[in-house]
Amino acid sequence: MRAITKAINSLKNYSPILAEEPAGPQVLTDIPGPRSKVLLSTLNNFSQDPRTIKLFIDFKRSKGNYAVDADGNVLLETYSQVASLPIGYNHPALLRAARSPEYRKYLSQRQTTEMPDKNWPTMIQEILIPIAPKGLTEVIPSCGCGAGANEYAYKLAFAHAMKKNRNGASPSIQELEDALHNKGNDLAILSFKSSFHGRTFGALTTTQSKPIHKLGLPTFDWPSIQFPDIKHPYAENETHNKAEENRALAELEMAFKTSSKQIAGVVVEPILGEGGDKYASPEFYIRLQDIVHQNGALVIADEVQTGVGATGKFWGHEHWGSHADPDIVTFAKRMQISGIFYKPHLRADRAYSIYNSWHGDPIRLLNLKTVVEVMEDEDLLALSRSTGSVLKNGLMELQRRFPISNIRGLGSFMAFDLDDGKTAEALVDEMIKAGVNCGTCGCRSIRLRPCLTFEAKHAEIYLERVEYALRKMFSDNPKAW
Amino acid sequence: MRAITKAINSLKNYSPILAEEPAGPQVLTDIPGPRSKVLLSTLNNFSQDPRTIKLFIDFKRSKGNYAVDADGNVLLETYSQVASLPIGYNHPALLRAARSPEYRKYLSQRQTTEMPDKNWPTMIQEILIPIAPKGLTEVIPSCGCGAGANEYAYKLAFAHAMKKNRNGASPSIQELEDALHNKGNDLAILSFKSSFHGRTFGALTTTQSKPIHKLGLPTFDWPSIQFPDIKHPYAENETHNKAEENRALAELEMAFKTSSKQIAGVVVEPILGEGGDKYASPEFYIRLQDIVHQNGALVIADEVQTGVGATGKFWGHEHWGSHADPDIVTFAKRMQISGIFYKPHLRADRAYSIYNSWHGDPIRLLNLKTVVEVMEDEDLLALSRSTGSVLKNGLMELQRRFPISNIRGLGSFMAFDLDDGKTAEALVDEMIKAGVNCGTCGCRSIRLRPCLTFEAKHAEIYLERVEYALRKMFSDNPKAW
Repeated sequence: MRAITKAINSLKNYSPILAEEPAGPQVLTDIPGPRSKVLLSTLNNFSQDPRTIKLFIDFKRSKGNYAVDADGNVLLETYSQVASLPIGYNHPALLRAARSPEYRKYLSQRQTTEMPDKNWPTMIQEILIPIAPKGLTEVIPSCGCGAGANEYAYKLAFAHAMKKNRNGASPSIQELEDALHNKGNDLAILSFKSSFHGRTFGALTTTQSKPIHKLGLPTFDWPSIQFPDIKHPYAENETHNKAEENRALAELEMAFKTSSKQIAGVVVEPILGEGGDKYASPEFYIRLQDIVHQNGALVIADEVQTGVGATGKFWGHEHWGSHADPDIVTFAKRMQISGIFYKPHLRADRAYSIYNSWHGDPIRLLNLKTVVEVMEDEDLLALSRSTGSVLKNGLMELQRRFPISNIRGLGSFMAFDLDDGKTAEALVDEMIKAGVNCGTCGCRSIRLRPCLTFEAKHAEIYLERVEYALRKMFSDNPKAW
Repeated sequence: MRAITKAINSLKNYSPILAEEPAGPQVLTDIPGPRSKVLLSTLNNFSQDPRTIKLFIDFKRSKGNYAVDADGNVLLETYSQVASLPIGYNHPALLRAARSPEYRKYLSQRQTTEMPDKNWPTMIQEILIPIAPKGLTEVIPSCGCGAGANEYAYKLAFAHAMKKNRNGASPSIQELEDALHNKGNDLAILSFKSSFHGRTFGALTTTQSKPIHKLGLPTFDWPSIQFPDIKHPYAENETHNKAEENRALAELEMAFKTSSKQIAGVVVEPILGEGGDKYASPEFYIRLQDIVHQNGALVIADEVQTGVGATGKFWGHEHWGSHADPDIVTFAKRMQISGIFYKPHLRADRAYSIYNSWHGDPIRLLNLKTVVEVMEDEDLLALSRSTGSVLKNGLMELQRRFPISNIRGLGSFMAFDLDDGKTAEALVDEMIKAGVNCGTCGCRSIRLRPCLTFEAKHAEIYLERVEYALRKMFSDNPKAW
């Protein structure tokens, strides 16, 4: 035990931030290395399953697109804190902003909804409203995480349905009594199988990507349908793909007709991320939107993973085209804070009915301000699109020689498939050994979630290492990079 | 619109922090004053029901136990960001800490569970473990808010029940299938009517303090029973009180026998805060604990509001005495981060089954470290107890002359009742006009949630203002303070 404490204490001598982004990955030890193993064993004494730790990051030394781990290994990031790191580690603009007096003001206290700082309205107006999706000019920046954001959206959809059901009348005494005693509500949110919307109980009901997320946990009896099973490239498999989309839309229409519950909203990701980077065509989403609206329900676009530029547009649903008209858009991850944008007419008509004690974190909102400024100054949406092309072309080239398939993506938000989950996990392991931090999704996909600052030069290193790892796995003659 | 923007912009000239805590409240304008009204109207353009805003706080100028609002009014805090402000505004120790390089490191990035900073294990070990409730030596500091913390606890209780039901065997294929498709789970958490445990859908099911929190929202069909209806002082109403406690415990035993669902856990606040500061005797809680354990379920103590010293002990459940043995303790608010402490044998046996992408916020954990240091250095638990006595004696004195009743409290966590809700709201209004920020709870109670730094001198000012407000409301001859 003393040895462990000593080893931990030695870690306290922080190294400075790397002056510049490294030229490439550098793997010095096994991963996890000896220091990381001590940390895993320490954490295991009092918290958290060590199997859920991928890396211990040295937040102080990491720089740009490169994570430095506790053992000094330098890894190219294509996972980026599960898609939550918009402009890389220790971006100079964020470091500069953090020295401003504004930050200090908010460091020593948290604000609640009832008693926000006097600058809060201006901050929302100047930081959040300019990036609001078209027509969604109200925002609630209140929720702790993506799950909380989605549950806010579900609540707003339920409040909207109840208001319509009551024709604007006030709730009866009986309704109030029933609410208090958990009785008599038959509203539901419809979701797609393979979706991930978070892990709180309402969000979890709509999450259907893996059994482990909800094993043994009560969930609501809400309807769900199969997302279209699209083959890539889309155009080359158009007959199959259109048939799949028609099948899903017919199921959606049928659900509205036959569900024993009133469907107040349909939640959908513009790309089903955790569920395996599943795509559908813009036309599918527009037709889905029409069906939902015809049935008096709301479209909730879960942009927790697709938001803030990764797809080459600020919001993923912008890819649906000019008719895109979601009623609520939820956000978290790269946004630094979580919450919802929504149409003004949906605002709940009763104070405290859709509500949370916490109302955003001013520090994280200030970070978002800097992120958005950097995105504009450095034209990062365009960069995401051009890097995406480099990645896609490179993966297509590899597909000719190795058993990878279904290469797909928008911007640098990309994925490809291996033959099965075990092979996908093995590739992730090989990639980490080769100095690239990456992750899986779905049952057999590798997902790329690089920072928006990921350039062609990073993409080339990535492709080189993928090739190396694939050779190692699938040929007797692994070429070094 | 231009006028509004101009007015807002003028607010950007921050005033410095008050050098010392003011000698007393100072009310310069109506509340809300002219600047606050502009802010309310601005916020109303794009966010949040303005009826849920009590005050716009000037975070920069506020100091210690005094909030300064956007109009420069100085208010004595007895509400403290809904019990979330442990050592007052801008405590010098927090301001000092915020200047350290450690803070800067965590300002520009957020950490996920899979990739925490390398110092995270040490931080948990050094900051959280020393304040762990007895025997609860595991901690998950992962949740965004108190509701999230409670849902974590519920999940842990469900996982524990399922493990027992399976006798340690692995889940069957059918079980995994059912989990994914929201089928076949009959587990429940039992809660008390009048409780408040948060607003996400699982937490909300157990929240039963006011209909407005859950009007129109789906909830689970989980059992709940009436909390004892205690009269204060406890000893003077012992026959009634003991009968009430026996009645509630008999209901609890009956629920275990007759519930159509398997009760995996019972969640209870050591004092029912939002529900009206409802107390029961330590004996009640110990007998409750015994019944729950005899039935193989877990005791979840929701310490979101009672934790971190307000009751004169660090944890509210310590008042249950040396036999106190909750299985899970949930925290948020004054802790600055939210999460759960729990018994080590409850750790889920499957990675990623009880999990959250975010794993605490290092900055808020560093703030907690300072809070705990200040609590020790300044012996704030003792201060909470002695200030509590001053408050209790003063309110007892006022009870002889005014229609207030049921004065109750532990430490400075106190409450008293008015005849009805309207009168309680009126008293809050009068108090705010008289320079004291305070709030209601339950249907007719005033709750005191001062900072732990609230001293006798603050208590005296508070009592003086309560007397003034009560005179104004109940006598023709209001004496000025």
